Amino acid sequence: LIQGDLVFRAFPDEETYLRINTPLQGCDVIILDSLDRPNQKLLPLLFFAKTAKEMGAKQVGLVTPYLAYMRQDKQFNPGEAVSSNYFAELMSHYFDWLVTVDPHCHRHRSLQEIYTIPTSVAHAAECIAEWIKMKIDHPVLIGPDRESEQWVAEVAKAAAAPYLILEKTRHGDRNVDISIPQLQTYRDHTPVLVDDIISTAQTMIETIKHLHAAKMQAPVCVGIHAVFAGDAYRALDAAGAGQIITCNTIAHATNKIDVSTIIINILKSYVSMRRE
Amino acid sequence: LIQGDLVFRAFPDEETYLRINTPLQGCDVIILDSLDRPNQKLLPLLFFAKTAKEMGAKQVGLVTPYLAYMRQDKQFNPGEAVSSNYFAELMSHYFDWLVTVDPHCHRHRSLQEIYTIPTSVAHAAECIAEWIKMKIDHPVLIGPDRESEQWVAEVAKAAAAPYLILEKTRHGDRNVDISIPQLQTYRDHTPVLVDDIISTAQTMIETIKHLHAAKMQAPVCVGIHAVFAGDAYRALDAAGAGQIITCNTIAHATNKIDVSTIIINILKSYVSMRRE
Repeated sequence: LIQGDLVFRAFPDEETYLRINTPLQGCDVIILDSLDRPNQKLLPLLFFAKTAKEMGAKQVGLVTPYLAYMRQDKQFNPGEAVSSNYFAELMSHYFDWLVTVDPHCHRHRSLQEIYTIPTSVAHAAECIAEWIKMKIDHPVLIGPDRESEQWVAEVAKAAAAPYLILEKTRHGDRNVDISIPQLQTYRDHTPVLVDDIISTAQTMIETIKHLHAAKMQAPVCVGIHAVFAGDAYRALDAAGAGQIITCNTIAHATNKIDVSTIIINILKSYVSMRRE
Repeated sequence: LIQGDLVFRAFPDEETYLRINTPLQGCDVIILDSLDRPNQKLLPLLFFAKTAKEMGAKQVGLVTPYLAYMRQDKQFNPGEAVSSNYFAELMSHYFDWLVTVDPHCHRHRSLQEIYTIPTSVAHAAECIAEWIKMKIDHPVLIGPDRESEQWVAEVAKAAAAPYLILEKTRHGDRNVDISIPQLQTYRDHTPVLVDDIISTAQTMIETIKHLHAAKMQAPVCVGIHAVFAGDAYRALDAAGAGQIITCNTIAHATNKIDVSTIIINILKSYVSMRRE
């Protein structure tokens, strides 16, 4: 494996200039690009894939620790763009395979329902469990909703900690009502809120209010993907989070849990598989 | 022709939500979207095309008064993305036809060299000539370079005015040396600088300096496409432009020349052609 060299820059009119300085003839090329704020990243990324292919690359694979457009996975109203499907189709056209970390699968049970290229998913649960075991005394994990239960249960098991699941009602993009069953049982524990994506952080902020009202300790907030929409990080901090901790799938000051090993492990098995 | 209704909005994480509220079954759909600052506009635009097709649209055509990615039309160095070709291929995949106003064709003599869908080009020359005839006494048109001559000559002829062509040497994206032959012949005229795109405005700014040194009047600066990279508009104004005038292909305070008629004329012939 060698590290390639490339130049991305913006022309004054905000169009993208791209040059790949490493010869790619006959190579298996891997590009690493996390797809938070995807709209402005997409076109340069497609230009990369095209250029690599024109330079003779055998395969061009995308490692995107955070995968975009996983949320709008069905039409709730007629005329709505099912962007998860359209995005997957577009990416499948330009790339030969894709590796990501814990994509936000909701109605889609697997990426293969929408991607027509081989995809592999690395799971951060064990990295998060390790961090919790090392850093937190008497943790009780709190998961944001029923769909997170399977995943939170896995982290809790690996961390040898109990867990609770919130009852959550969503009223639009930013408004969420929550309640926490059985909280009183864990008053001497450190609450650890875990979610896959911290975007607006509204669920965590509401949860912190409930924990505060129930006189629990300030919780540790753990997310895999540090999206932090707008001023969400500041708001979560101001709401009384004890610590805010994320995995390094999207670069952010809160990145304390390294997931590079789980990505590398996938790539190793992937590359050796492809060589057979 | 009916005007459709759609909703574009950003989710908090900056992904795009799109909903088309007008039934499109069996329709010929036209979307109007100027492609300055193209990177962030592209993905929503592709989602629109996909959604319209899924709703049963017969054809989806794009009217883009300013067409993006026309500049990098060859590899100057190995490994460079030939973005004009890649962009054309992508657009050709999603749209059934395309109409634009004076694209910046340089090495490509026609859009059909890179677009595989039908394309039509509206020419702003006559609209600009009309404006000059109505508003400017004794104009002398000044074109920025040899490749503009054919076009400037056409405007000059329609405006019944003389024209000059600059000798221009480019040293990178932002640095340009220029000289103006035969300027002294037109000392009693109003100089009218005309260019297809005003991006950094460096050519116009340098030209204004030369005109000022030659004690010519403050020139009228006319561009078709008001890209105005960064603070280019302010810089051009500060450099001593008498007036700054653009066509309404990209919304800007300087839009004084309306090109909607030439676009509509193309669409009329286009639609009637397609009906035969």
